[in-house]
Amino acid sequence: MKRYEALAEDISQSIRTGVLKLGDQLPSVRQASAGRGVSPSTVFQAYYLLEARGLIRARERSGYYVIAGAKGLPPEPEVVSKPDGRSMQVDVSNLVFDILQAIRKRDIVPFGSAFPSPLLFPLPRLAKSMAGTVQHLDPWSSVDDLTPGNAGLRRQIALRYLAEGLTVPTDEIVITNGAMEALNLCLLAVAKPGDAVIIESPTFYAALQALERIGVKAIEVPTHPREGIDLVALAKALQRHKPKACWLMTNFQNPLGSLMPDEKKRELVQLLSKHDVPLIEDDVYGELYFAGKKPVSAKAFDTKGLVMQCSSFSKCLAPGYRVGWIAAGRYATALTRLKLTTSLSTSAPAQAALADYLSKGGYDRHLRQLRHTLSVQQTAMMQAIAKHFPAGTRATRPSGGYFVWLELPEGVDAIAIHQQAAALGISIAPGPMFSARRGFGNCMRLNYGHPLDKRAMEALVTLGKLVCAAAPK
Amino acid sequence: MKRYEALAEDISQSIRTGVLKLGDQLPSVRQASAGRGVSPSTVFQAYYLLEARGLIRARERSGYYVIAGAKGLPPEPEVVSKPDGRSMQVDVSNLVFDILQAIRKRDIVPFGSAFPSPLLFPLPRLAKSMAGTVQHLDPWSSVDDLTPGNAGLRRQIALRYLAEGLTVPTDEIVITNGAMEALNLCLLAVAKPGDAVIIESPTFYAALQALERIGVKAIEVPTHPREGIDLVALAKALQRHKPKACWLMTNFQNPLGSLMPDEKKRELVQLLSKHDVPLIEDDVYGELYFAGKKPVSAKAFDTKGLVMQCSSFSKCLAPGYRVGWIAAGRYATALTRLKLTTSLSTSAPAQAALADYLSKGGYDRHLRQLRHTLSVQQTAMMQAIAKHFPAGTRATRPSGGYFVWLELPEGVDAIAIHQQAAALGISIAPGPMFSARRGFGNCMRLNYGHPLDKRAMEALVTLGKLVCAAAPK
Repeated sequence: MKRYEALAEDISQSIRTGVLKLGDQLPSVRQASAGRGVSPSTVFQAYYLLEARGLIRARERSGYYVIAGAKGLPPEPEVVSKPDGRSMQVDVSNLVFDILQAIRKRDIVPFGSAFPSPLLFPLPRLAKSMAGTVQHLDPWSSVDDLTPGNAGLRRQIALRYLAEGLTVPTDEIVITNGAMEALNLCLLAVAKPGDAVIIESPTFYAALQALERIGVKAIEVPTHPREGIDLVALAKALQRHKPKACWLMTNFQNPLGSLMPDEKKRELVQLLSKHDVPLIEDDVYGELYFAGKKPVSAKAFDTKGLVMQCSSFSKCLAPGYRVGWIAAGRYATALTRLKLTTSLSTSAPAQAALADYLSKGGYDRHLRQLRHTLSVQQTAMMQAIAKHFPAGTRATRPSGGYFVWLELPEGVDAIAIHQQAAALGISIAPGPMFSARRGFGNCMRLNYGHPLDKRAMEALVTLGKLVCAAAPK
Repeated sequence: MKRYEALAEDISQSIRTGVLKLGDQLPSVRQASAGRGVSPSTVFQAYYLLEARGLIRARERSGYYVIAGAKGLPPEPEVVSKPDGRSMQVDVSNLVFDILQAIRKRDIVPFGSAFPSPLLFPLPRLAKSMAGTVQHLDPWSSVDDLTPGNAGLRRQIALRYLAEGLTVPTDEIVITNGAMEALNLCLLAVAKPGDAVIIESPTFYAALQALERIGVKAIEVPTHPREGIDLVALAKALQRHKPKACWLMTNFQNPLGSLMPDEKKRELVQLLSKHDVPLIEDDVYGELYFAGKKPVSAKAFDTKGLVMQCSSFSKCLAPGYRVGWIAAGRYATALTRLKLTTSLSTSAPAQAALADYLSKGGYDRHLRQLRHTLSVQQTAMMQAIAKHFPAGTRATRPSGGYFVWLELPEGVDAIAIHQQAAALGISIAPGPMFSARRGFGNCMRLNYGHPLDKRAMEALVTLGKLVCAAAPK
């Protein structure tokens, strides 16, 4: 056991035995370093590990705290998925649409939603940027901002990469209509009908729908609820299937919330690089980390231009504006051309407004507030789940994003729960939406990105009752 | 010869012999009806025919005029295309990109551009709508305006259809990122790789690129420079190929500028309907008619929901906003789902701004001004072509839109002209961009949607010299 692991284990023990209680602040890194006679970096590593295990959490600028219910939280799921390793045609899109249609109501409790509450975003500030820029918009912007997109916005995005220590040339950045279009274009750039592409299991349903639409087969690879895709299984799949791409989320994966450790990201990129397989990296949740700094992305380890990183402002700043991008690596020209022939360009006023907003500062302040809110709401939801759901319920403990993944007791049918809940005005996202095989029948994804007000807490009680009633006695 | 044709022939004769001179006003319909002893509707029909022949033109609210140079204009092309009737893989996209890339410079004389001058649009009024709506945008609009789109905007579009006498239910209208995305989604809704789709010859290059991208074969059908696609050839192609769709422009076709007569549109829809083949109707130029009222679209004759009509605000109101739509007929649900999985939704602020602008009036006033400007610019360009291009040059005489199609003397290589012109700071769109077979080697499309200022007129002189030099002696 390494030194930092030993220290982490010590602290875990203190939490489990109640020496450190819910809400207690941990010693500062300096204090712990001096007190334990270890280097500050060892303390940092230990704290990061405890954080990854969901036992403590940093509050920005005020240190680490034992998070609520570390003891009373539902246990984490085991390795969730055991897909059979074959490639398969996808046929899940209609199921997904039927469920999304059933829960697309403004007055439903939105645990099944893919979006956080729009009230969490700085809409008045954005409106000011929009009003200011549109009134002075160069008439020629409709031509100049054609794909690859507004030069100022692309520069602001490149600057944000630079701030995380990542050099992405501006001319590799292609502006898109949100990350959804970005991901679709990346898929089109590398895969043709009949080809196979590696995805996570479980995976974001839009990936399944994209594969299904263009007739690309899915190879589902087991994905760990805490650390992301299984690299051993991935290596096997690469050898067996010669896939045209690997499409995944390294940071706060949807639906699991898993966060791939840095070292694993490096290995992932090396492995794919060895097989010359491009990576489509969906990083829309990367900014929504609860502690520390922005997790690096697989893109950071890319030396061959094989990683197409897709992201957007829809989940962290400007929902509805539909502005995303691709850090396109060697595929920049191909993706620019694909974008030009599929939707020509992204709305010029929206691009200009975001460029203005980003150039004026305030984004990071907004993000800090947003992360804090999501973190607090996660804790509240976790506590409610622990209290109201039956024994045998397991839950992931993501350190970012706004989704938690529940594994319900064997035999509970999440689609049935979805139907019963929808009738009571509550939405969930049942597990079979997230799998080409319609697996995960006893799983569901819940969204904690909306205020957990009285109505939402009552809805969790109701959900718990439905699950209890469905659980084998 | 029918009565109105005889009357039209009389007037043509007067123009040819110089009795009626360039710029002369024709008698009003009432005067002519009384004077000639025919019904007003006969006079109207005669005037429409003369207009279609490019001899006279209505100025809104002030009657009909002999248009400049009716005598001195270049002759119209004969039936332009004789494709061989086979279906074929398309491989023209890179040629198109290379040409577009070479001419994508702000300081080039933009005869090759696909866009009219952005200075022709009411950008300050739009900015006011944008600034006003975005500041009061309901935060939930990011959810409510998800595809099929903003309810107010879809209602405004339905109202405009109603004003032309066409009932399109609001729930058949799907908002898209411009017409480009609309057309692509329609194609995806009905055709798979390996299928064949009927297109015009020549056709808009983006149609070729879309077919090429998804591996759909093209069946090129001869298209008349004045009246659009040849229905006899179309009927043959329908029997021979069992295509999955027919994709064309009935109004002011790009690149020819052809306008399909109403009766022909009816026959077109009946013919396709008999074969149960959907029509993808691109109507982005329909509002840019120079005289009379908005030409009807094929959609108006659709009784089976087989016509997907695509349009947008990009060519007549708000370039750069990227807001278009599909009047989707029986494909509304399929297209909504396709849009949701490819780009989720269209920018909410842009949708709201356009809904506001349209609800406040002023659009029709703007359109009247725009049509007048384009009409005047067409005349000026035509005169310059007649003066500076060599004998043997033929030119279409569109009664709307902003493109003219030139047939240069046999042996002139339009791609070579493009290269020479680009080096001199002048863009054109050479004929081979508009054909799967890279035909039309001696043709080019010119854009008269930009002010024909001194520099542009000089550029036409230069172009004329290049063509003269290339023409066989």
